[in-house]
Amino acid sequence: MSSGKERYRFLLVPAFRLPKDSPFEGQKSPDLPKEERLMNFANLRHLLEDVHWDMHEGALATYGNWTVENREEFCYSAAGRLPVVREACASGKYNAIVLLGGGEPGFFESREISRRFNVVVASCAFSQMHVASMLGNKFAVIDFSDTHNMYYHNLVVQHRFTERCASIRNIGYYHAKPQYPGEPSLGMERDKALRGEPSEAVERAVKEAVDALENDGADVITLGCSALFWVQPLLQKRLAELGWEVPVLEGYSCAIQVAKLMVDLRLNASGLAFPSDRPKKRPRKIVF
Amino acid sequence: MSSGKERYRFLLVPAFRLPKDSPFEGQKSPDLPKEERLMNFANLRHLLEDVHWDMHEGALATYGNWTVENREEFCYSAAGRLPVVREACASGKYNAIVLLGGGEPGFFESREISRRFNVVVASCAFSQMHVASMLGNKFAVIDFSDTHNMYYHNLVVQHRFTERCASIRNIGYYHAKPQYPGEPSLGMERDKALRGEPSEAVERAVKEAVDALENDGADVITLGCSALFWVQPLLQKRLAELGWEVPVLEGYSCAIQVAKLMVDLRLNASGLAFPSDRPKKRPRKIVF
Amino acid sequence: MSSGKERYRFLLVPAFRLPKDSPFEGQKSPDLPKEERLMNFANLRHLLEDVHWDMHEGALATYGNWTVENREEFCYSAAGRLPVVREACASGKYNAIVLLGGGEPGFFESREISRRFNVVVASCAFSQMHVASMLGNKFAVIDFSDTHNMYYHNLVVQHRFTERCASIRNIGYYHAKPQYPGEPSLGMERDKALRGEPSEAVERAVKEAVDALENDGADVITLGCSALFWVQPLLQKRLAELGWEVPVLEGYSCAIQVAKLMVDLRLNASGLAFPSDRPKKRPRKIVF
Amino acid sequence: MSSGKERYRFLLVPAFRLPKDSPFEGQKSPDLPKEERLMNFANLRHLLEDVHWDMHEGALATYGNWTVENREEFCYSAAGRLPVVREACASGKYNAIVLLGGGEPGFFESREISRRFNVVVASCAFSQMHVASMLGNKFAVIDFSDTHNMYYHNLVVQHRFTERCASIRNIGYYHAKPQYPGEPSLGMERDKALRGEPSEAVERAVKEAVDALENDGADVITLGCSALFWVQPLLQKRLAELGWEVPVLEGYSCAIQVAKLMVDLRLNASGLAFPSDRPKKRPRKIVF
Amino acid sequence: MSSGKERYRFLLVPAFRLPKDSPFEGQKSPDLPKEERLMNFANLRHLLEDVHWDMHEGALATYGNWTVENREEFCYSAAGRLPVVREACASGKYNAIVLLGGGEPGFFESREISRRFNVVVASCAFSQMHVASMLGNKFAVIDFSDTHNMYYHNLVVQHRFTERCASIRNIGYYHAKPQYPGEPSLGMERDKALRGEPSEAVERAVKEAVDALENDGADVITLGCSALFWVQPLLQKRLAELGWEVPVLEGYSCAIQVAKLMVDLRLNASGLAFPSDRPKKRPRKIVF
Amino acid sequence: MSSGKERYRFLLVPAFRLPKDSPFEGQKSPDLPKEERLMNFANLRHLLEDVHWDMHEGALATYGNWTVENREEFCYSAAGRLPVVREACASGKYNAIVLLGGGEPGFFESREISRRFNVVVASCAFSQMHVASMLGNKFAVIDFSDTHNMYYHNLVVQHRFTERCASIRNIGYYHAKPQYPGEPSLGMERDKALRGEPSEAVERAVKEAVDALENDGADVITLGCSALFWVQPLLQKRLAELGWEVPVLEGYSCAIQVAKLMVDLRLNASGLAFPSDRPKKRPRKIVF
Repeated sequence: MSSGKERYRFLLVPAFRLPKDSPFEGQKSPDLPKEERLMNFANLRHLLEDVHWDMHEGALATYGNWTVENREEFCYSAAGRLPVVREACASGKYNAIVLLGGGEPGFFESREISRRFNVVVASCAFSQMHVASMLGNKFAVIDFSDTHNMYYHNLVVQHRFTERCASIRNIGYYHAKPQYPGEPSLGMERDKALRGEPSEAVERAVKEAVDALENDGADVITLGCSALFWVQPLLQKRLAELGWEVPVLEGYSCAIQVAKLMVDLRLNASGLAFPSDRPKKRPRKIVF
Repeated sequence: MSSGKERYRFLLVPAFRLPKDSPFEGQKSPDLPKEERLMNFANLRHLLEDVHWDMHEGALATYGNWTVENREEFCYSAAGRLPVVREACASGKYNAIVLLGGGEPGFFESREISRRFNVVVASCAFSQMHVASMLGNKFAVIDFSDTHNMYYHNLVVQHRFTERCASIRNIGYYHAKPQYPGEPSLGMERDKALRGEPSEAVERAVKEAVDALENDGADVITLGCSALFWVQPLLQKRLAELGWEVPVLEGYSCAIQVAKLMVDLRLNASGLAFPSDRPKKRPRKIVF
Repeated sequence: MSSGKERYRFLLVPAFRLPKDSPFEGQKSPDLPKEERLMNFANLRHLLEDVHWDMHEGALATYGNWTVENREEFCYSAAGRLPVVREACASGKYNAIVLLGGGEPGFFESREISRRFNVVVASCAFSQMHVASMLGNKFAVIDFSDTHNMYYHNLVVQHRFTERCASIRNIGYYHAKPQYPGEPSLGMERDKALRGEPSEAVERAVKEAVDALENDGADVITLGCSALFWVQPLLQKRLAELGWEVPVLEGYSCAIQVAKLMVDLRLNASGLAFPSDRPKKRPRKIVF
Repeated sequence: MSSGKERYRFLLVPAFRLPKDSPFEGQKSPDLPKEERLMNFANLRHLLEDVHWDMHEGALATYGNWTVENREEFCYSAAGRLPVVREACASGKYNAIVLLGGGEPGFFESREISRRFNVVVASCAFSQMHVASMLGNKFAVIDFSDTHNMYYHNLVVQHRFTERCASIRNIGYYHAKPQYPGEPSLGMERDKALRGEPSEAVERAVKEAVDALENDGADVITLGCSALFWVQPLLQKRLAELGWEVPVLEGYSCAIQVAKLMVDLRLNASGLAFPSDRPKKRPRKIVF
Repeated sequence: MSSGKERYRFLLVPAFRLPKDSPFEGQKSPDLPKEERLMNFANLRHLLEDVHWDMHEGALATYGNWTVENREEFCYSAAGRLPVVREACASGKYNAIVLLGGGEPGFFESREISRRFNVVVASCAFSQMHVASMLGNKFAVIDFSDTHNMYYHNLVVQHRFTERCASIRNIGYYHAKPQYPGEPSLGMERDKALRGEPSEAVERAVKEAVDALENDGADVITLGCSALFWVQPLLQKRLAELGWEVPVLEGYSCAIQVAKLMVDLRLNASGLAFPSDRPKKRPRKIVF
Repeated sequence: MSSGKERYRFLLVPAFRLPKDSPFEGQKSPDLPKEERLMNFANLRHLLEDVHWDMHEGALATYGNWTVENREEFCYSAAGRLPVVREACASGKYNAIVLLGGGEPGFFESREISRRFNVVVASCAFSQMHVASMLGNKFAVIDFSDTHNMYYHNLVVQHRFTERCASIRNIGYYHAKPQYPGEPSLGMERDKALRGEPSEAVERAVKEAVDALENDGADVITLGCSALFWVQPLLQKRLAELGWEVPVLEGYSCAIQVAKLMVDLRLNASGLAFPSDRPKKRPRKIVF
């Protein structure tokens, strides 16, 4: 990484790292170039051209050898990621950290840590929701896995978007886990789709998005779990072909752009929302 | 612990355990009887008389040798507590787990875990907020430490009580930390107050509570951090003497009672709010 | 009733009493034991085992010889019940009053009266809504009779649960009234169901509950009118068989448990929400 | 009363009637002309000029010989007023009923009753709140008596105006009751004020109104209890003299005008909000 | 226009005036009597009988020769109408201005202007929403044209009725524009309907209204664009025939009645909500 | 302006242009370089370095020779600006339009126009509110002029930020108008402040900001009218010196960054929120 004089010096931090011997997808070899380790890099290339960025390998998953999916796993993932964030802030090498992973484990804690170092933190759910609410009145979330849906429900509440979220739509796959062998794989759907073959996952995403547009009041589409972010250009194209002129977002691009926006504006989280341990000033009361 | 035939079989789980050599308060020797290890037991005795209860020692704090206070520390505390919850559920010995600690680290994750074992989980902030909203229109939270206030702010949002929370009031102490020696100690205030001597902490709590009643629309008082729960009977008495007929809550008693309520009703969290990894049924869409 | 030294000393007060010569259901002879006069006692037995309880006969209905159903009738029922509440409070025999009747006529007024005597009052709609909101994100109300639905709508608004109530579902029966002879009877449905025969009312309740779970965002089911409370165990079982892991509540059990919770916590309604006629202290302004 | 061909045929119904031997104010002899029995008639004269109106004597108070003030008394007052409303509707003589009394006891029930007769019902709190929200962003309520304040708080919630009500301000008098002899009398304040003498009640109303305008976001002033409605022109004048260009409302005039608006538009309450006992159509679900 | 001594002296101001040579409907010759120039006068006759009213010809449309439909056109229409409003206020001839046009272009600005002259301004969307919320819990808007729907969406938000608006329903016609020749015409539908022939537009309005009643929680029906106001009596009749006892509103009658209500009450907009350029008093802060 | 191949091709459009002979500030000669015509360019330089930008002279004010301040003037300003926006879009020279002027006249209409050309529009109030809500929980608006405050109030409502706006604070100056000669001038305050002299306007801004932080729950400060944007660095510095670690925003920088974010993401407003005149698809119903 470079000397610190560049405009954007970003560290991208995955939500976790699976053990090397994990049979499950979600793990790229750390020996690969960062561009190959970053999912869907082709969709992000133009946004990273003016960024000096590193790609962290992620903290080792402590809960097992599979991808984070339910609240319990997200908690372990969050705790695993915080030392990475703290170290990156302390290194002085970065002016922003982009948290990968659709469910943004450790986001609030990372903002608390990084603000004290004057480093920006951006993440996927937060950034998608804010960008979506700039574009329309209500967004739908296309997601999969019931436990992930409800974890994401908590994020919508925590970020104060209950009035702007039309619905969370579940297209019905799961992350592979040892105890559930032989389930249909979203990764295989992705591979089919990227080869140009019909993909059931894409079909379901289109169906749920259209239903959200027609019935739930949605006018922007977002994607929940990062394992679905590859759908973004395909879904955008399909909706346009159907005549729906609505934006389809995904998390990495939104988080990168939110990070840039804050870095350029020399802004960071409010010190009243994310206080120091011993702040100089505080209000007498906090209201909602 | 007994055979499992009793009506209430509770495990009380602290938010963390400090290392043995910690110079900071918040740690009772595991050799003491549970009644001496449970803070403010005298205030809770009548609620625990019909409960067969164990007191867990808490998971060792991984972030340092001081008490959990900011979001980062709460995240580590949550991750540390989940294995305790999982093990307790799996043991079959308990029908409810009461999470000690005012900030309830790991509460949502624990509900997810425990529902699958049909074990109830109750915690302090959640229970206080729900009980308070049964008693009046708006509650105030008497709390201390800026970082804790804002962590608690997140809990109010997450539990959907923004319209029922009049304000969070900060009485201005901190948990002792190695890097901030010589600060005024809330523990010393507690000791003074319990000896019947004047206590600045109690005075501030009265002042903030009255201001919340007079100006913020509060009609019920709750307490934030469990390190303040000892104030409850003193504050209740003082407000009554001033003519304010308002309930003052603290977290342990509320959590114990919520646990009993659910155990007796044979109820647990909704499986749609806290799903299994592979639930049999799911709604097509989740709305707010 | 006993001496006043017991932990729980409850008076259960029906919403009304029909005249002896009423041809309509809803009236048990006052000569029967209290256990036979309390609807669905079998479902409540375990909750009342540690309670010393009396069963009031109810105030005589002043509007007619049929069951309370619309707003006008509820108003008369409320006015009829208040002297019962006042007398019970003044007797010193009880530490809680449980208002029977799903629509809880006279609840707010009873809290005002009883707080001055330091007696707790709990009721069915209030308690179900609060318990439901501890268990999930949104509850549906299974109810019947259009006028009752809209009366209940007012209760949801008054208790501040509009954001937590997914929908009120009407299964389409009515209380018998002299001017509408020959209508299908919910009582006959109950009898069929309790005999283990197919019941159209149960089928409709299942259908509406499932529709609320699938489409309205409901994750907890509650029951509106107490004339439907018998459905609770049947509906809970049916939903479980269909794979829906959601709690089904009814009002009597919830109200009894809320009463116990408050009695044990030595809590009562806030004196600012339910003031005395001449309180010692008052806020300068009341805000929402 | 006339033949029924007039445009406006209104019955004005007081909230209650005190027994003849009551020592307390609030009772005018039924032998007086209606203009003398209607409080503050001079302020309303121009609104009633095109109305054929009768003034009912009110139903006899059943709770005592004093003015309705707390929730318990309001419930009795409501139950007492419903037969008057029903009879007036059935008489065919009126096309609207105006419920006098600031706290509008029996309003919801009266709408249920009267809609079936196609008679309009209007009342004071409801009408003031609706008119106020046409004029500005937030209204304050100048009121007195703590119990009345909190009863009125319930009305604000029930009418769905929590976001439009800036505050309820208590100027600190009470209705006279036998058990509280010798209290300062609002009636004496009124008499002083109407004689042009200084009145403490007016001063307090001005002070609370200004404080609500300056600090609570209020931009319209309303009055709570009808015993304060005489303050309206005085408060309006005083605020104008101070430079505050804000409307001051009172209930009788607003209710009369709302009644006229509905009568002229040939509108009445929605039959879905206030259903018949056996409506022809109903929605499958009621949502909020 | 008369001398100014009459009770109601209203100026009705269309949203725009099309050029004389416009081929599009929406333009009546200024030589016609006002009764023929006012759309659907027959429905309004009884409301205008006691009003001395003038009918302004409207400001010439600056954006083209067609009817205002999208946000851009509404902005031009608003700017065109303000001088008419200012001149009318300054003339001293009127005590109220009724803004015709369902989308009420220039309403907020007109209230700002007219309050300084003590002249009332009423308009269609505002008045319908307020009247609807007096009649039921939630209203639906029957409207047409996508751009108009979303312009109207903004009005619902601006008037703070998001919680009271069940849905906006689009029946699928457009205002004729030069670049879209040969489209189905709502005007032809109106003519058919008024001749008693079947009208597709009426059928669609019935269908959407019923769907809103059955599924969206609507209990009152309102109409969006004034080009649909002719539907009101027909839709009211059809819904009644189907058994739906719900009010159907349209804008002109509601606006006229709101104007009368304010004129009689001698009320106008709050000077804090619509300040003078240099007001005598202002609050320190404005809150929501 | 360049060929259209650059990444950012922006047109900055003032809210209006004063006539050449206007005696009032707010007008720079069109002969000056764009950097001198853009207010506070020094604060924006780093954000515009990678932007090919033009500075439009603004549409001539039609309401007078002074700066836009009240709702009426804003309406004329909006109507004046739309042809500029339409022409700029049609020119194909720009991929984004930045609307200058704190009150963003014509923003909604401009988004409707520009989306059809696939050109982004960003403006000051919208962008500040969205950025502020990314940084903290509640923002305060420091503003001046009562009529502008209330116009801005409407913007907060329209953009759906009522729950995130702590307060609008008025520091008490006015735009100069012919009919109010000799008033204190905000421009003189700015000149003093920029020369390093004490400025009453800055002092008031600090005072109101601190009061909002201490009492209103604000944790981010924004600025209302663009005539105050020069205060941003001064206020930021002063608050930091006082120990308040809160971001202070101003509109131009936020709008530029929002425009960049959207251009880079290749996003534009949702076509359902800002429809074409004849869209291919539309939802059956629009909900809130």
